[in-house]
Amino acid sequence: MANDVTPLGDTAPPGYAAPPGYAATKDAHLKRLARIEGQVRGIARMVEQDQYCINVLTQISAATKALQAVALGLLDEHLGHCLVHAVEAGGQEKDRKLAEASAAIARLVRS
Amino acid sequence: MANDVTPLGDTAPPGYAAPPGYAATKDAHLKRLARIEGQVRGIARMVEQDQYCINVLTQISAATKALQAVALGLLDEHLGHCLVHAVEAGGQEKDRKLAEASAAIARLVRS
Amino acid sequence: MANDVTPLGDTAPPGYAAPPGYAATKDAHLKRLARIEGQVRGIARMVEQDQYCINVLTQISAATKALQAVALGLLDEHLGHCLVHAVEAGGQEKDRKLAEASAAIARLVRS
Amino acid sequence: MANDVTPLGDTAPPGYAAPPGYAATKDAHLKRLARIEGQVRGIARMVEQDQYCINVLTQISAATKALQAVALGLLDEHLGHCLVHAVEAGGQEKDRKLAEASAAIARLVRS
Repeated sequence: MANDVTPLGDTAPPGYAAPPGYAATKDAHLKRLARIEGQVRGIARMVEQDQYCINVLTQISAATKALQAVALGLLDEHLGHCLVHAVEAGGQEKDRKLAEASAAIARLVRS
Repeated sequence: MANDVTPLGDTAPPGYAAPPGYAATKDAHLKRLARIEGQVRGIARMVEQDQYCINVLTQISAATKALQAVALGLLDEHLGHCLVHAVEAGGQEKDRKLAEASAAIARLVRS
Repeated sequence: MANDVTPLGDTAPPGYAAPPGYAATKDAHLKRLARIEGQVRGIARMVEQDQYCINVLTQISAATKALQAVALGLLDEHLGHCLVHAVEAGGQEKDRKLAEASAAIARLVRS
Repeated sequence: MANDVTPLGDTAPPGYAAPPGYAATKDAHLKRLARIEGQVRGIARMVEQDQYCINVLTQISAATKALQAVALGLLDEHLGHCLVHAVEAGGQEKDRKLAEASAAIARLVRS
């Protein structure tokens, strides 16, 4: 599976091929991400135009909050699908997925 | 001055025309923002390709941290330039800029 | 069950009586919380003694991180026990617990 | 000056003796810190009583937000007093205090 963004640690479970937890809301996530990409481009344009620092900071806070909202949505779906399936599967898969979810939550809380 | 991103509250001081606090590091900020824009586009591509939720979350945490780093850089320069000038100017301008900086810091801490 | 701290929204499931998810690590959590209580008392003493603002802020950052660490530990155990049981129970209980966990994670990420 | 909490890095400027930036609001800060200390003690009591994990997490989020509010208040006063004095003093003192304030802000944003 091609991946232009280098994952920073976790990898999909071996043989991962199922639709991800966010399959049903994929379009909504893509729309939000396109909007955030536009926000970041807008921030660069503000810097390019020497706009006032505080206004640039306001936009960065807004983009950061928007990214967090996408992350919280994905995480909610991950718990409700992938984690539920792993619990039903039981065994190592369950433990691995629980540890992985906790690590992802810790990264979000600390970022 | 055209501004494609709607400011969420603060506005530049009346007659703001001076180079912003980040004038000396503008190129570095633009490079970082271009990289973050690419990260967000990469995240959208991961979602488009149904990649594993946890890997998408890892990239969102990384992009969030990168945005925060830009914000902290801009804020540092803002304090060292705009705020210093305002303190030297004194009076209302000083008070206004101090309140504005505190509000921007609060937004960052809470985002 | 007496509760001197007013819960801010969620309540235990009706009939909640089982040991909580953190039963096995209760002592470790209590030790950490006692240490954090001491940190907060130390911060108050610094303010009482007119100590330097930046030093007070450093201690507040440390106490905040320590509280987050307790929260992440409790959450990890909650997912591994309470949520796993709810998934195994299935039905409304599963959905309720998933929504509740997501809401708790969102509060942590935003605090 | 006795300090029961070990400072994690910054130290008061040599010869620091002046009232801190928060002198005028000291009582309000002490009241808030006493309340937070009570919150942390309440969280420990909840754990002691095996209360439901999610309710404990809700209280930790509340205590974390309360600590952040104290920090933002102290920082606002620090900028308005200590930093303003340092700018007026100029020279090395100004640069040192600006770097120190930025570092404290970065710790808050990341905690």
